[in-house]
Amino acid sequence: MPDLPKTMRALVLTAPGAPLELQELPVPTPGPGEVLVRIAASPVNPSDLHFLEGEYGLNWPYPLIPGLEGSGEVVAAGPGLMGRYVMGKPVSCTADKQGCWAEYMVTQAALCLPLPRDLPLGTAAMAVVNPLTAVAFIQIAKAGGHQSMISTAAGGALGAMTRRMAAEAGLEVINVVRGPAQVERLKAEAAAHICDLSAPTFPADLVTLGRAKKCRLALDAIGGEMTGQLVEALAPKGEVLIYGALAGAASTLNPGTMIFKGITVRGFWVSKWLEKRPLPQKMMIMRRIVAALKSGAAQSQVAEIRDLADAATAPADYAARMSAGKILISTGALPLGVEATPIT
Amino acid sequence: MPDLPKTMRALVLTAPGAPLELQELPVPTPGPGEVLVRIAASPVNPSDLHFLEGEYGLNWPYPLIPGLEGSGEVVAAGPGLMGRYVMGKPVSCTADKQGCWAEYMVTQAALCLPLPRDLPLGTAAMAVVNPLTAVAFIQIAKAGGHQSMISTAAGGALGAMTRRMAAEAGLEVINVVRGPAQVERLKAEAAAHICDLSAPTFPADLVTLGRAKKCRLALDAIGGEMTGQLVEALAPKGEVLIYGALAGAASTLNPGTMIFKGITVRGFWVSKWLEKRPLPQKMMIMRRIVAALKSGAAQSQVAEIRDLADAATAPADYAARMSAGKILISTGALPLGVEATPIT
Repeated sequence: MPDLPKTMRALVLTAPGAPLELQELPVPTPGPGEVLVRIAASPVNPSDLHFLEGEYGLNWPYPLIPGLEGSGEVVAAGPGLMGRYVMGKPVSCTADKQGCWAEYMVTQAALCLPLPRDLPLGTAAMAVVNPLTAVAFIQIAKAGGHQSMISTAAGGALGAMTRRMAAEAGLEVINVVRGPAQVERLKAEAAAHICDLSAPTFPADLVTLGRAKKCRLALDAIGGEMTGQLVEALAPKGEVLIYGALAGAASTLNPGTMIFKGITVRGFWVSKWLEKRPLPQKMMIMRRIVAALKSGAAQSQVAEIRDLADAATAPADYAARMSAGKILISTGALPLGVEATPIT
Repeated sequence: MPDLPKTMRALVLTAPGAPLELQELPVPTPGPGEVLVRIAASPVNPSDLHFLEGEYGLNWPYPLIPGLEGSGEVVAAGPGLMGRYVMGKPVSCTADKQGCWAEYMVTQAALCLPLPRDLPLGTAAMAVVNPLTAVAFIQIAKAGGHQSMISTAAGGALGAMTRRMAAEAGLEVINVVRGPAQVERLKAEAAAHICDLSAPTFPADLVTLGRAKKCRLALDAIGGEMTGQLVEALAPKGEVLIYGALAGAASTLNPGTMIFKGITVRGFWVSKWLEKRPLPQKMMIMRRIVAALKSGAAQSQVAEIRDLADAATAPADYAARMSAGKILISTGALPLGVEATPIT
């Protein structure tokens, strides 16, 4: 076990929506079932943006350290079998009571995914939130006997992963993107079905494509009017999974369409979904994620690597240009093994 | 078989939202699997109001005869076993390709529910839409292991039936009503939980009650803001069934609440629900409805009985004062056995 410092740098949120502050705090001590992770890097995800506004399903007391996923190595473990198992290993990790935007994080040992040493920690920092969600979407689609699905926010990292994994699984994807630049990018990728949200014909285009494919599954990252547009585009007995709220507005939908087409709209939170999987399925999911990270199918574009000391404005910068790729917050403590290549 | 006339009086809708016209039309002939019902009476239901505006899941060509349910006696049958079985019997019936606001209606023999001779035809006219929906709600609640549910439009006929049947089944009901007069009426009925939509504290009241009862099922007849208010009031993993759109506005709901509480919003159309029941369950449901009609649990208040010749304005009159009770459109051909007693 390496010698641990007494204090660490961390980004601190004092109230919902407040600016982040770089503070010097005591390094926390892991309790039973917990470990201490020396953080290598952590991305800014859309879920972090909601979290910073106090609009996320975790109710941590303020002040708090944000950052819902990251990578690093386990440098201390509290009592417990899982902790001993991951001790000393490189891991992808998710937050439990403190976030990853700090030099050290205490979390549940069970929330650490041990990694092969040859997987770069920069890649491993984005192993859970997006890849796990994409894996979940594909499993839900297969379990429901779907042959096609509508993916919103298809220009983003999760959209790309979902598309790649869907292709591997033989599922057709209708990709909803935010403008002509994203249309071009997806065309270059040879994506088959693209719908441009910024086109005046958008709602009709989506309905035409959705009905042509008899699509019964839609993944809604957006909310607002999008939810109702998906409801209209789906075939009877279709289902919309709401998993994000990028529009920042209430979902609207036509009750008549819901009734007469028998549509279901369901909130989807990937953490709860994973919790409900039986252990053997969890293990299989984790192996699938590691394989997808290695093959590149689950890899996120990194737009920028920013030092923790300069990262207080990283969320706002990411929010302003999401589809350029992720901003990775690095502690500088460990080599990341990835380079920034923004999407232009 | 009685001698049938060549023509009949019928209310005709020429276009969505157009005024109804009393016309003289040929009496139709039943085809295979069909019967001809001499109509006794037919109510105006909220679903008829939507149907008249062209906002219902049936796509009949115009001009058409509206009226989704009624009662009468079967006076002719096309080829088929079911037709021979119901021939000559008093029935409750639902519409298939022509409605009940006429002296005669052709419909599927399978959509006719043969009745005991001692059940008044005025009561039998309202045997399906509301009682079947109430039976469905109770079955869904029991199948889902629910102990409580939120019922909207609880001041109406369906609300009353749902409340009575829920009491029999040991289910608690949170009744959402439209104003102080309905609050008083439900108090007189000794309804335990009443929420007044017109009170300034309404959304908070509903959330308080819903959470206190750990309620996971809500029946939404209203849409608009109500859908989102129900989503907020339900406990985690709760489900909203949208079965009506009385607000005439898009449902709005918070995507964050959907995600983090894992809420489901589902369109519910009672005809589709019934279709999916296996035959033995259908028979049991029908027996339950007849029993509930006889006991009074499924009986609707009749505000007025109006002759078919004067009924062109009945939908508008009903829409203006729904909770006074149903307006029953009578052809005058058969005794109804009920009297009008409006709720004041």
